[in-house]
Amino acid sequence: MKISELSRRSGVSIPTIKYYLRDGLLPQGQLTTAANQADYGEEHLRRLRLIRTLVGVRRLSVSAVREILGAITEEGDLHQIFGIVIDARPATKLRKQDREETAGGDTEGVADARRLITEMGWEVSPGTAAIQTLGEVLDALSDVDAGIGWQSLLPYARLTDRISELDVKQMNGASDLLELAERAVLVSVLLEPALLALRRLAQEDKSARLFSGSPGGGETA
Amino acid sequence: MKISELSRRSGVSIPTIKYYLRDGLLPQGQLTTAANQADYGEEHLRRLRLIRTLVGVRRLSVSAVREILGAITEEGDLHQIFGIVIDARPATKLRKQDREETAGGDTEGVADARRLITEMGWEVSPGTAAIQTLGEVLDALSDVDAGIGWQSLLPYARLTDRISELDVKQMNGASDLLELAERAVLVSVLLEPALLALRRLAQEDKSARLFSGSPGGGETA
Repeated sequence: MKISELSRRSGVSIPTIKYYLRDGLLPQGQLTTAANQADYGEEHLRRLRLIRTLVGVRRLSVSAVREILGAITEEGDLHQIFGIVIDARPATKLRKQDREETAGGDTEGVADARRLITEMGWEVSPGTAAIQTLGEVLDALSDVDAGIGWQSLLPYARLTDRISELDVKQMNGASDLLELAERAVLVSVLLEPALLALRRLAQEDKSARLFSGSPGGGETA
Repeated sequence: MKISELSRRSGVSIPTIKYYLRDGLLPQGQLTTAANQADYGEEHLRRLRLIRTLVGVRRLSVSAVREILGAITEEGDLHQIFGIVIDARPATKLRKQDREETAGGDTEGVADARRLITEMGWEVSPGTAAIQTLGEVLDALSDVDAGIGWQSLLPYARLTDRISELDVKQMNGASDLLELAERAVLVSVLLEPALLALRRLAQEDKSARLFSGSPGGGETA
C-alpha cells in the first residue's frame, strides 16, 4: 500500500509516519518503480498501530518505544524481550530521597523488598528496576509510620503472583514470535492502568459497603 | 515545638513549611508570648509527614494534596473521604482520542467497563474517574486488535477485588478518624506503585520459568 493508505488505515498522519521512518522506528518500505514511492505491507501497519498505542495511549517516549521495538526485532528469546519491556518502560518515578544505605548499598526498603522476593521464591535479576520501586515505597511507608512493612505486602504479592499467571495466559494463541512479543508489551504495559482502575472500583465498592455512614459525620476540625 | 524543630523532625525545610502555612495546607500554630513565634504540635508533624509523602514520593500537585487534606479535615464519613481520595488523585492520564460515542455518550470501551462492573456486582458511582480509565484501556486494546475484551478482564477483576479486601483490612487498628483517613490515603495512593512493581517481579519470574530459551534465538528481521 502507499503511504497515504498506511496513514488512513493506521490513523497516524503522513508527517508522523515519515518521522518514524527517518527515526528507524518503522522499517523502510519496498521501493517501487514509481519515483519517490515506496510500498508498505501489513507488517508496517501492525507495527505502526503498536507504536501509536505505546506513544499515544501509554505516553511512552520515542526512545522507550525504540528500545521495545528493537527488542522485538532483534531478540529471539521471549524472556529477554519481556525483561526489556518490564525494565525499559518508565517505572513510576519516585523522587530520590537521602537515605541511610545498608552495607550492601541498598536502602532498608530495598533490603526488605529482597526479603519479600526470597520469601515468594521469585527468580528475578537482582538489578531489576521494580526492586528499587518496591523498596522506595517501603521506605516511604516506614517514613510515615504506616505500620505496613514487607510482611504486610506478602498477601498482596500472592495475589499479584496469580495476576501474573493470567498475564502469561494472554500469551497463548499467538502465531509467531513478533505477535507473542507484541502481546507481551500490551499485557505488561497497557493493562497497568486497567488494573489500577479495577482496584479503585473494587475499593469504592468495599468502601460503600463498610464505611458509608461511619461515625463522625458533620464534624469539622 | 518551634518551627525549627518541626522542620528537623519532619525533614521539610522551614521555607517550605511557611509556604504550606500560607497556603493553608498546614493549620497555623498556637501563638506564643514570644513575638513572631508559634508553637506546633504532634498533629502538625503528622500532617506535614503526610504532605511530604504525597508531594515528594507520589508527586501529587499541591492542589491535589489540598483536596485530600480538606477531605480529611472537613468530611466525617470515611466513605466520602475514600471517594475523594480515589477520584481526586491524578488518574493515569490517557490521551483523548476521537472515538465514536455510543448513544449514552460513552465510548464502546466505557460501555464495556460498565458491563464488567455490573457483572462483578460492584456498587460504584456512575461518574467515577476509574470507569473512564478502564474504558480507555479497553478502547486501546480494541484498537490494536489485542483480542482482550472486557470478559478477558473478569479474572483480573476478581483478583483485584480480593486485593481491595486486603486494602480495607489495612484500615483496622486506626484509633481515630484522622488516622483512618490517613491510612486510606496511604493504602490507596502509596501502594499503587508497589502493586505494579510486584506484578513486574512476578511476571519476570513466570517469564523466566516459561519462556527462557524459547525458539527464535538469533533471528533478525
